[in-house]
Amino acid sequence: MASIPSTDHTTLSSTPQDTLVLRMDKAARALLAAGTTEADTQTELQTLCLPITALWCRILRFDPAVPNWPDRDRCVVPSSAMLPLLSAMLHLTAPDTQDLSATVDYGQHPAVEIATGPAGQGMAAAAGMALAEQQLAKRYGRSLVNHRTWVLARDSDLATGVALEAAQLASRFGLSRMAVLVCPSPLTDPTDFSDSLARFGASGWSVRKVRAHDLGAIMSALQAILRARKPTLLACMPECCHTLPDLPAEDELTGPWSPTARRGASIRRSWLRRLAQHRGRADFERELAGKPRQTMREDWGRLWRQTMRAAPNGSSQQAAFAGLGALALLRQDLAILAATSSTRSARRANLPIPFSHSAQPCGIQEHGMAGMLNGMARHGGILPCGVAGMMTIDRMRSALRMTALMRSKVLYLLTDDGLALSDNGGGWQPVEQLASLRAMPHLAVFRPACAEETFACWQAALNWPQGPALLILCPNPPPPRAGASRRAGHYGGPSHGGYLASCGAGARHVTLMASGPEVAIATQAGQHLSEQGLNVAVVSIPCWEVFAQQTPAYRAAVLGSEGLRVGIEAASSFGWERWLGADGIFVGMDDFGISAPANAVYERFGITAGAICEKVLARFLASGAQKDSSPTAPSSSRLEDLDMSLTITRL
Amino acid sequence: MASIPSTDHTTLSSTPQDTLVLRMDKAARALLAAGTTEADTQTELQTLCLPITALWCRILRFDPAVPNWPDRDRCVVPSSAMLPLLSAMLHLTAPDTQDLSATVDYGQHPAVEIATGPAGQGMAAAAGMALAEQQLAKRYGRSLVNHRTWVLARDSDLATGVALEAAQLASRFGLSRMAVLVCPSPLTDPTDFSDSLARFGASGWSVRKVRAHDLGAIMSALQAILRARKPTLLACMPECCHTLPDLPAEDELTGPWSPTARRGASIRRSWLRRLAQHRGRADFERELAGKPRQTMREDWGRLWRQTMRAAPNGSSQQAAFAGLGALALLRQDLAILAATSSTRSARRANLPIPFSHSAQPCGIQEHGMAGMLNGMARHGGILPCGVAGMMTIDRMRSALRMTALMRSKVLYLLTDDGLALSDNGGGWQPVEQLASLRAMPHLAVFRPACAEETFACWQAALNWPQGPALLILCPNPPPPRAGASRRAGHYGGPSHGGYLASCGAGARHVTLMASGPEVAIATQAGQHLSEQGLNVAVVSIPCWEVFAQQTPAYRAAVLGSEGLRVGIEAASSFGWERWLGADGIFVGMDDFGISAPANAVYERFGITAGAICEKVLARFLASGAQKDSSPTAPSSSRLEDLDMSLTITRL
Repeated sequence: MASIPSTDHTTLSSTPQDTLVLRMDKAARALLAAGTTEADTQTELQTLCLPITALWCRILRFDPAVPNWPDRDRCVVPSSAMLPLLSAMLHLTAPDTQDLSATVDYGQHPAVEIATGPAGQGMAAAAGMALAEQQLAKRYGRSLVNHRTWVLARDSDLATGVALEAAQLASRFGLSRMAVLVCPSPLTDPTDFSDSLARFGASGWSVRKVRAHDLGAIMSALQAILRARKPTLLACMPECCHTLPDLPAEDELTGPWSPTARRGASIRRSWLRRLAQHRGRADFERELAGKPRQTMREDWGRLWRQTMRAAPNGSSQQAAFAGLGALALLRQDLAILAATSSTRSARRANLPIPFSHSAQPCGIQEHGMAGMLNGMARHGGILPCGVAGMMTIDRMRSALRMTALMRSKVLYLLTDDGLALSDNGGGWQPVEQLASLRAMPHLAVFRPACAEETFACWQAALNWPQGPALLILCPNPPPPRAGASRRAGHYGGPSHGGYLASCGAGARHVTLMASGPEVAIATQAGQHLSEQGLNVAVVSIPCWEVFAQQTPAYRAAVLGSEGLRVGIEAASSFGWERWLGADGIFVGMDDFGISAPANAVYERFGITAGAICEKVLARFLASGAQKDSSPTAPSSSRLEDLDMSLTITRL
Repeated sequence: MASIPSTDHTTLSSTPQDTLVLRMDKAARALLAAGTTEADTQTELQTLCLPITALWCRILRFDPAVPNWPDRDRCVVPSSAMLPLLSAMLHLTAPDTQDLSATVDYGQHPAVEIATGPAGQGMAAAAGMALAEQQLAKRYGRSLVNHRTWVLARDSDLATGVALEAAQLASRFGLSRMAVLVCPSPLTDPTDFSDSLARFGASGWSVRKVRAHDLGAIMSALQAILRARKPTLLACMPECCHTLPDLPAEDELTGPWSPTARRGASIRRSWLRRLAQHRGRADFERELAGKPRQTMREDWGRLWRQTMRAAPNGSSQQAAFAGLGALALLRQDLAILAATSSTRSARRANLPIPFSHSAQPCGIQEHGMAGMLNGMARHGGILPCGVAGMMTIDRMRSALRMTALMRSKVLYLLTDDGLALSDNGGGWQPVEQLASLRAMPHLAVFRPACAEETFACWQAALNWPQGPALLILCPNPPPPRAGASRRAGHYGGPSHGGYLASCGAGARHVTLMASGPEVAIATQAGQHLSEQGLNVAVVSIPCWEVFAQQTPAYRAAVLGSEGLRVGIEAASSFGWERWLGADGIFVGMDDFGISAPANAVYERFGITAGAICEKVLARFLASGAQKDSSPTAPSSSRLEDLDMSLTITRL
């Protein structure tokens, strides 16, 4: 790695530059005052204006000409109320002067790093960016990666659970290049604000207070941040009767001639020279573009074949961890954050996972972890992967939503799925989680049934273009031949999201559809029903989102155009009408689980091959259909329940 | 209110009783050691054993003969790993000796106060119980309500965001009768543990450390808790080389003869005597049973008619707050927790809400707040109601799930719904939230369209028997006559979950279904289509769960048996196939919102009367159907997209 150059953050002296900051501050205040914010927010904006201006003029690595330059400092604004500050700064420094009346939301300006999201979420994302910087700096050295993450927070952000979780993680990971600037809101009880500061102090942060109008104090606090060995929280305290010196705002301080712009441009030019000579340049640029090595495809296939030979009948969880291990070998930009719940279960199962050397342990702070994954993905140069227990997904949901909203590439492995959890009491199983995740735009939810399907799902998850992808994993190995192995009538494959696992010749009487561990149950039920003389097709549908993207012809071939459809999933029926139509039968659980061994739970909810056969046969008897049943659905007059009684799909 | 009697928590002396505790401790340790827990957990259990035994023998108000006696101390165990301690204590004190091999999960023993749920959730529930105690004590005096809430936590619980939010709230509300006992896990870094303690200290808690084997120190710490003016965290620190005195465990200390049982029985008897003489006895007992006054029904109707006369065309949000105000007058047991997001918007809209006198402000800590609502509901005697912004529901989800799982009655008012948010930039609208909530078992989701529907939904929410109910509210008033007002063909009503708002005579061509603000758009589209000669029905479906419970005949009459079905909702289509069938059209948004004024968002996603009419007419043209169309669906061969192309429902 190249030698570390001097820090590039200018060392600071006094008066002439101070005047410059004060003039800029005056211009910024005028811009803020012209905005349409509420009075309370206006007070906060004015309080933070001088500290932010000082940061912007004297410290921040930012070139307005190339606002998305990779080694820029990240400036994260977690609350939309604080966005006018960012807007004012961009207005004063950027050459194509921003329209101040427009809000600078995510996607509208390359210098806006993240979508704000719910309170506190940005704090976690900033910690993720700082972690990404740390990891990239380790690989490429400070000559290429030498920036910081600044957060313009509100005090309400600091009080949220996600921010407090992220603060613990930031301290644990030693993210000394993260700094948060905040001021008390006029609506906040001063005790609450100082409690917030104390909580950050207790979380291993360096906490400082400065007077928000004292430029000298602000500058020395900012300089202390540059030297800090911990993440820093800088509280800017307003003074009621302070007036700033009355300096004229000068035009040449703004636009491309602004001190920020001049400093940013010069820093970026010298960075470009270093990049040109850096021996890791090709890798660096490829990873920033989010691309794998050209040999990735075959290496991945080769590693996977090895894995499959070693444990052909492993559980989907085992296979997914093997895939994660393979990915860690092939993609240096992979960064894994893992919650305790999953690391423990991996350790218990003695899985060959790359946790030992590359995964960052995130304890029980899953919400903070998920927020950090957002920041890592937005930082660039990193492929973030989160590993956590399936039951914790609700805690991560508001962070996951931001990932989907920003269409970021984040992989999630969710371990210990559902009923199959364990035989020492299943606890309170996930019921509605699958439906609630499938309802989220841009997110792909994979629930593979066996090791071979897991391979295809890994592949599809990596290729999923729209954003995050989840793999929902079961620790129990499926019975042999439950999954993707080729049988009569096999058509398509798991990489299509859904496929025909087996099917007899001739007109179908029944199509059994299932995902994950329930595919084995469907297969078994299919065998029983075949013995009764019915022509049964078994469909495994590990990913609805990918399946929905296939051609109508493919879907029609898989789902079939006649006979009864049965959906089997140890989860809520919500949304299954999409595939089952109105006369379909759903076998699952529309109630919360009970605490009992998995087998008992499956039996209690009637998710067994025997119960499925009974239901199917009862339906055929009730409709008076012959076993060589006509393609029409059973008459709807006999249906007991509306929830199951929308009409059968004909594709 | 009756005068306050002495605290009933026995004042403590020394040796003979200490011996008793130590003997009991020995018996408990033997029980724990016989369990099948992992080694790390076993260490924690053994460390906490003496403090818990001391609490149980000397302090806890608990009568094993009547474990759900209303004025008992609540003992909350947030982690299933700590349940063996509770199990051992119950085994030693309860007359019907517990089967120790069985886990003491929620619902299996009346002394198990809550379902554990994800880490930290129990901390928030315990704070809710303490708040319920505080509120009931204010109303009925300490002669009837004089108990405490104890938490047997793990250190991982303390590090979670929800616990930290709840800790802030517990301190803000002055819940001095809440105490948490915890010991460091052998797997936790000692620095992390002391950071946890410091964070609680910074949140306004009294934090104490005792040596876990020093009975004298434990007893004085417990006594200090009885006097504390803040919530207390008691950290029990293990000592590596400590051995407890070797005392024989005696049989007569366990079972109904245990000191806990004797003390509990005597305290309960004197409480019963006080209750018999208490002038608020009838109200107290009625409220503990969760029942309203007998006159509730008519009072509620009267107050509501007043409200409707005052603002007949108000928004659903305005009406819901009016309903909350009415409820606060009629039900003294109503307790409101409100997040900042909603109180601000209520203040902005100048709503006559009962916030000023009875709502507890929960700031930005929605997750902690939702967890507290669980505890308040489980405590009994309280009807908890949470008010928060719709966009924060994901943060509250894992707490809401526990409410649903425990089938607790909690009401939620979610304000500022969706696209209608405001005209100063809609922000990132909810998209998948409706579907994700509808997928949750036991939860009823109401999305009323107008003030009159809001009344019916309030009523239905109060009557919903299975558990929590949500009202999703829009701040913008609907255009006149958009909602439940009676027009031609009106059938059923909003209290049925869905109803026919209007319908022409003869065979239906089109049924437009919508909820909330989109009902107005559907009505408008219906008028346009009627002018084109189509026979249009407009269905408002404010609550799927209630509608699904109606008779098939009612649903069939509302949904109709012929013609095209169109679902209109500014949200994800996920799950709508249940009502639309395969050939139905869904008009909504399967992508995240954009930041723009609400009208612009509606137009961008095509959720306008004009766009709906175009889609409907295009379908009729494509299928070649005449305007006097036959009841068969348009031919499916012309459908472009599977997601919209399951077959039309025929009930």
